[in-house]
Amino acid sequence: MKVGIPKGTRDFSPQQVNKRNYIFNTIKEVFIKYGYQAIETPTMENLSTLTGKYGTEGDQLLFKVLNNGDFLGKADIQALDSRDSVNILPSISKRGLRYDLTVPFARYVVMYQNDLVFPFKRYQIQPVWRADRPQKGRYQEFYQCDVDVVGSNSLVYEAELAQIYDEVFGKLNLPVRIKINNRKILAGIAEVAGIPNQFMNMTVAIDKLDKIGIEGVKKELANRGLSSQAITQIEKILAVKNLEELKPFMDNSETGKKGIEEIEKVFQYLGDYQAANEIAFDITLARGLNYYTGCIFEVQALNIEMGSIGGGGRYDDLTGVFGLKDVSGVGISFGAERIYDAMEELSLFPEDDSKDLKLLFLSFDEQSHLYAFQQLIKVRAAGINAEIYPEPVKMKKQMKYANGRGAQFVSIIGSQEMESGQLSLKNMVTGEQEKMSIASIIDKLK
Amino acid sequence: MKVGIPKGTRDFSPQQVNKRNYIFNTIKEVFIKYGYQAIETPTMENLSTLTGKYGTEGDQLLFKVLNNGDFLGKADIQALDSRDSVNILPSISKRGLRYDLTVPFARYVVMYQNDLVFPFKRYQIQPVWRADRPQKGRYQEFYQCDVDVVGSNSLVYEAELAQIYDEVFGKLNLPVRIKINNRKILAGIAEVAGIPNQFMNMTVAIDKLDKIGIEGVKKELANRGLSSQAITQIEKILAVKNLEELKPFMDNSETGKKGIEEIEKVFQYLGDYQAANEIAFDITLARGLNYYTGCIFEVQALNIEMGSIGGGGRYDDLTGVFGLKDVSGVGISFGAERIYDAMEELSLFPEDDSKDLKLLFLSFDEQSHLYAFQQLIKVRAAGINAEIYPEPVKMKKQMKYANGRGAQFVSIIGSQEMESGQLSLKNMVTGEQEKMSIASIIDKLK
Repeated sequence: MKVGIPKGTRDFSPQQVNKRNYIFNTIKEVFIKYGYQAIETPTMENLSTLTGKYGTEGDQLLFKVLNNGDFLGKADIQALDSRDSVNILPSISKRGLRYDLTVPFARYVVMYQNDLVFPFKRYQIQPVWRADRPQKGRYQEFYQCDVDVVGSNSLVYEAELAQIYDEVFGKLNLPVRIKINNRKILAGIAEVAGIPNQFMNMTVAIDKLDKIGIEGVKKELANRGLSSQAITQIEKILAVKNLEELKPFMDNSETGKKGIEEIEKVFQYLGDYQAANEIAFDITLARGLNYYTGCIFEVQALNIEMGSIGGGGRYDDLTGVFGLKDVSGVGISFGAERIYDAMEELSLFPEDDSKDLKLLFLSFDEQSHLYAFQQLIKVRAAGINAEIYPEPVKMKKQMKYANGRGAQFVSIIGSQEMESGQLSLKNMVTGEQEKMSIASIIDKLK
Repeated sequence: MKVGIPKGTRDFSPQQVNKRNYIFNTIKEVFIKYGYQAIETPTMENLSTLTGKYGTEGDQLLFKVLNNGDFLGKADIQALDSRDSVNILPSISKRGLRYDLTVPFARYVVMYQNDLVFPFKRYQIQPVWRADRPQKGRYQEFYQCDVDVVGSNSLVYEAELAQIYDEVFGKLNLPVRIKINNRKILAGIAEVAGIPNQFMNMTVAIDKLDKIGIEGVKKELANRGLSSQAITQIEKILAVKNLEELKPFMDNSETGKKGIEEIEKVFQYLGDYQAANEIAFDITLARGLNYYTGCIFEVQALNIEMGSIGGGGRYDDLTGVFGLKDVSGVGISFGAERIYDAMEELSLFPEDDSKDLKLLFLSFDEQSHLYAFQQLIKVRAAGINAEIYPEPVKMKKQMKYANGRGAQFVSIIGSQEMESGQLSLKNMVTGEQEKMSIASIIDKLK
C-alpha cells in the first residue's frame, strides 16, 4: 500500500509547527499592537467571487471544488458533448479554494460594510491554494499574512505599515531593508521621459532590475518600443539615490511631485521612530501589480540570497469589483514561507522549550508505576509539561523513549524511591543526578 | 452585484476569532502540558487516502477537487457518455478536502513510522469539510480538535485523556460530566443476554438512550429481532449505577470482566487526581462508531440542553487500512463548535482586553496630529496597543470612531497639549478625564 500526499502540499511535524507558530505569533503580536484585528474567511469561496480577479492565468490556477451529488446530470450538455473543460465549469463547480487573502477581504468589506467601523484595520493569516507547478519553495498550499486598512487616504497608515515591517523583522532578528517608493513617482518618470502612455511597460521592466540589471532593463525597454532618448532619461533618473536628487527631475510633473510629497510625509510621521532596520526610499522599486496607485513597499532580507520577503502598497479601488466604489486602502503582506526558509538558513529560531517535555517518569514495576503516576498528577497540577512512560518495561526501552522524545529531566521510580519519598531527578543534558522530594522537583522545574 | 459565501461556511469577525482562539488556546495549553505535540496535515488529501474510510454516506459527503487543466480531455469516456457521476470521479478528481483528522493522522503515522518515537502523542486542531446539508449548528467547514496516542495499550492514556477533558472544561469554566464505559462491557452484556452476534445491533440501540429513553431502546431492540428475554436482561443491566452492581452480571463473561478491570485500572490511576468535574462510569454509554474496542468516553455539558461536546475511545486498528498492523491507540476529540455555542449561551467567555485597543489619539489640526503620532510611537514602543485617528477632522467624527472601535482610553491633542506636554487622557468607560505627561500615560496603561 502506497501512502502519500498530493504534490505541492506538506505535512508539518511538531518541530515545524512550533517554528511556524513562532513566526505567526510574532507577526500577530505586532499587528495587534498597531490596532489591527483578525478576521477569518472560509476556505471555499463562490467561484463567482474568485473568477476574473486574478487574470486568465490566475483563473487556471484556481482549485475548483466539484458540486456534490449527481453533478454530471446537471452539467451543461453542449460543453459536455464538446469536451469543453472551461465552459462546463459553471455547471459542475460552484466553489473554489481561496487563492489569496485580498479578494476575500474585499468581499468581506463589501458584505459587512454597514457593520464595520471605518477606517477598518484588519489582519488575516490563513492558507491559500494555487495549482502552480510545485518546485523548491513553491507550494500548492501555503500561508499568507496580510494586514490592510481600508477607508482612509491618510499617509499615517503608510508610516505605521513601514513600522510594522521594521518591528516584526526586528523581533525575528532577521535584518532587512524596507524599500519604499510611490507609483506617482514612477508615473512622473514616464511623464518626464515623454512616454506617459507606456507607464505599465516601463514599470514592468523596472520591476526586473534586481534580476536583470540596468542593461537588461534598458534592453527590455527598447524591446517594448521606448525611444533611446526616453531610455537614457529613465536610466538617469533611476540612478538617483534620494528624494533631493530626484526633485529637479520632477519639476515638470505634478504627479511626480505629489509622489515625492507623499513619501516625505511618511518620513515626517516616522520622525521619532527608532527603526531596527533601514527604511529607505528606492526609486527602482516598481512592484509589478497594476492595482497600486500610491506608496509601494518591498522588503529585502540582508545576509541571504532570496527574493523579497514582503511587499505591498496603496490601492484605490479594492472593492469596486464588488460594487463598492471609492474605498481607498493600503496593505502589506509577509512572505511567511520565505521568512521560514531564511530563518532556518540563518539559524534564527530561538530555543523555545515552553512546548517541550520537561519531566518524564520511568518506573521499575507495576507498583512503582502506579506511584509514579500519582507523582505525575502533582507535577502537572503545578503546570509543568510532563508525562510517564506507559509501562514498567525494561529500563533500556524506557530510556530510549526519554531520549527520542527529548525529555529535559527524567525521574526513575522504584521501591526505594517509593519508601523514602526521595525521588531521583536526572538532567538529561548535563547527566547530573539528584535525589529530592516531589515538592522540591516541582519547585526546581517550575 | 450580489456578494456572499457558500452555504454552510462562515466568516469570522474579530470578536469571534478572539473567542474561538480562547477555546483553542485553552485546549492546546492542556494538551502540551500532558506531553502531546502538534502536527498539521494538508487541506487536500489524495482521494485514494480518503475514499472508503467513512462508509458510503461519507464518500458522498467528501468535497472533491477537480483536476486542473483539460480534465474532460482525460475523463473516462464510458462514464462520461453514460453521465455516471460516481464512476467518472477517479478520472477527473485526484484530491479531496480533509473530512476528519483521524484518517490523515493514520496516514501520517504510517508515512513517518520510521521517524516517529512511539508511543506517539499528537494533537491536531484544524478545519475539516463535509458536504452535509447545512443547518443550525452544522456547517460544511468546521474545526476539529483531536488528541491521540498510538503505539501503546497502556491504560495510563485513558486516565490522562479523562484528566485532559476534566482540565480543559475546568479552565473553560464549563461544568460537564465525563462519562466512561468500555466496549468489552457492552460485548459482555451481549454475551450474557445470549445475543453475542447481535452486539452491533444492541450497541446502536443503546447509543440512542439519551434521545429515545429506555422504552424507545427496548422497542428498537425488539425491531432489530432481539428476544424479549434478552431485552429484559439488557434492561436490567443498563439500570446498574456502578461497577460493583455490574460485577455479578458479568460473572459468566470473560470479556465483560476484562472491561470492568480496565475501567477499574483507569480509576486507580486517577487515584490522587482532584477532578473539577464528575468522571463517572456510565453503562449506558455506547458510542455508535464500530472501530472502538476498549474504553469509550463522552462529555455532556451540564446546565444546558446540548448533545455531547466531546467523545472518543480506544481503537485497535487505526492504521491497518494503510498497511501498518497492530497499532493500538486511544484518542478523544473536543466539539469546538458546540463548546463555543455553550459558552456563548452561558456567557462564559472571559473579558479579555489583551487584544483590545487601549489608547486612541485624536487631534485638532495638522500640527497636533503630527505631534500626536510622535507620542503614539512612544506608546507603542512600550508595548501598548494603540493607534491614532488618521486625520484631524471634526472631533465628533473622531469620537464616533473611538466609540465604534471600543477604545479604552482616548487622548485628544491640540496646541495647548503640545505646548505644555500635559496630555489629556479620557477613560471611555468611566468618563473620567486627567492631564498628564506621555510618560505617565505609558506608566498608567502598561
